[in-house]
Amino acid sequence: MTRVTQRRRVTRLSADGGVRERPDTLAGEEPLEIRVNGTSLSVTMRTPGNDFDMAVGFLHGEGVVSTWSDVQRIDYRSGIGADGLRDYNVVNVELVEGVPPPDAGLERHVYTSSSCGVCGTASIEAVKRTGVHGAIVDDTTFALSQLLALPGQLRESQAVFDKTGGVHAAGLFVPTADGGLELACLREDVGRHNAVDKVIGWALREIGMPLRGTVIQVSGRASFELVQKSVLAGIPMLSAVSAPSSLAADLAQESGMTLIGFNRGTSLNVYTQTQRVRVEAVDG
Amino acid sequence: MTRVTQRRRVTRLSADGGVRERPDTLAGEEPLEIRVNGTSLSVTMRTPGNDFDMAVGFLHGEGVVSTWSDVQRIDYRSGIGADGLRDYNVVNVELVEGVPPPDAGLERHVYTSSSCGVCGTASIEAVKRTGVHGAIVDDTTFALSQLLALPGQLRESQAVFDKTGGVHAAGLFVPTADGGLELACLREDVGRHNAVDKVIGWALREIGMPLRGTVIQVSGRASFELVQKSVLAGIPMLSAVSAPSSLAADLAQESGMTLIGFNRGTSLNVYTQTQRVRVEAVDG
Repeated sequence: MTRVTQRRRVTRLSADGGVRERPDTLAGEEPLEIRVNGTSLSVTMRTPGNDFDMAVGFLHGEGVVSTWSDVQRIDYRSGIGADGLRDYNVVNVELVEGVPPPDAGLERHVYTSSSCGVCGTASIEAVKRTGVHGAIVDDTTFALSQLLALPGQLRESQAVFDKTGGVHAAGLFVPTADGGLELACLREDVGRHNAVDKVIGWALREIGMPLRGTVIQVSGRASFELVQKSVLAGIPMLSAVSAPSSLAADLAQESGMTLIGFNRGTSLNVYTQTQRVRVEAVDG
Repeated sequence: MTRVTQRRRVTRLSADGGVRERPDTLAGEEPLEIRVNGTSLSVTMRTPGNDFDMAVGFLHGEGVVSTWSDVQRIDYRSGIGADGLRDYNVVNVELVEGVPPPDAGLERHVYTSSSCGVCGTASIEAVKRTGVHGAIVDDTTFALSQLLALPGQLRESQAVFDKTGGVHAAGLFVPTADGGLELACLREDVGRHNAVDKVIGWALREIGMPLRGTVIQVSGRASFELVQKSVLAGIPMLSAVSAPSSLAADLAQESGMTLIGFNRGTSLNVYTQTQRVRVEAVDG
């Protein structure tokens, strides 16, 4: 069973009067309800796949878990879809004893559930308080040529995008023994924040935090929440193909993260913490 | 005071070793808390501006208001920002007596607050129930040439995008006396759903529902929630520059809405309800 992509009939119309009926591949989009110890915390539209990583990555960004070992058990809870079959759209995360579940209070709830990130100035403070690793202290530097290569490397690996043209991607690049960077984990999703949650959940499970010496490359814009999730994972650099928002730049600056935007392969913009970029002429 | 865009210092680095320090314009991003009768309902990151329209448009998509006259009064509630000044990031919507406020129950809360839209199959049913105008019955047709022109017309009017390259846009095209379409309202925002909420809030205030004979053109992908919000406004056609998701296509089909994707000026894909597109050869 795969629901990452789905087939639909489409009519393609061209300006010259051309009409073509053909099957088309669309990115899958289904709700995922995340529960903690049986209590519903959020519902987000996502592309199915890597749901457990997404749930734990999301909870990391909310300050609920700090390591994978905070999780006792994860499973799908029964939800019955329109077809009468179990729909795999409800994930329950059982925390180990002693790890406090998220506050179920109303205010917490409102803030948590907004998948666009939590609240401005107040939440910049909250991120600092929540961050188990504090502001990023990481003296890794990266050559400009390495950084300019990242969007191309991400794009080459985007299987779902190739089929659908309709998903965001996030890729975690980790340091290699010879001083390079390699793509360790790529996730694609209809929601940019989900792609990042899935990457961070994977990293919690496979590497552990903080993610020193790494770069997270995203396919689109850099929003506040992407910076927030990455800062909490201790990632010293976020590189985006498109523009950052003003609040994303503010949070990156205050958190000691290097924020790069408009990384288009031949040039890029550094918005904060420029000391991590080594400038040198690149051949070609 | 404008917070639609903000200036930041940026270092632009090129592959040839070029280093240029310059001011850059970033899209503003700040939280907006929406309250109904004084009770907090949601917090969403948005580009400041047209906040009242956004709040009422959002409440329309939630089935809370069906006309602008359901609103008794809207104002900013005091929120004090980091600079000690009122931050204009909390909007309270006072409903007229007799209009029931949203259910403050937990489940309602979780679903409402997810800015990625509500829950799959269950919510397709909920949309049908909530929709004051029911499934779309609108026999308007549009010439292919008209539709292919929409992305260009939207793009020409995108002032914030021109400065920042970092925002989504939604534009409502309304019928003219001579059978054409004209851009009646364009909104830009860091969140695609906010841009649509702002457009729909404007339309509630200026035109009223349902929005028969109109087309809503969006700059990016067509997600489930954009279709949902548009269906509830009675818009018979949504056209996107990029791909729709599978659930967006499902909801459009069931709701009688024509869904167009990959509208790139010379060709487009029709995913549902093709009868509203008149195919004819286009000169040039």
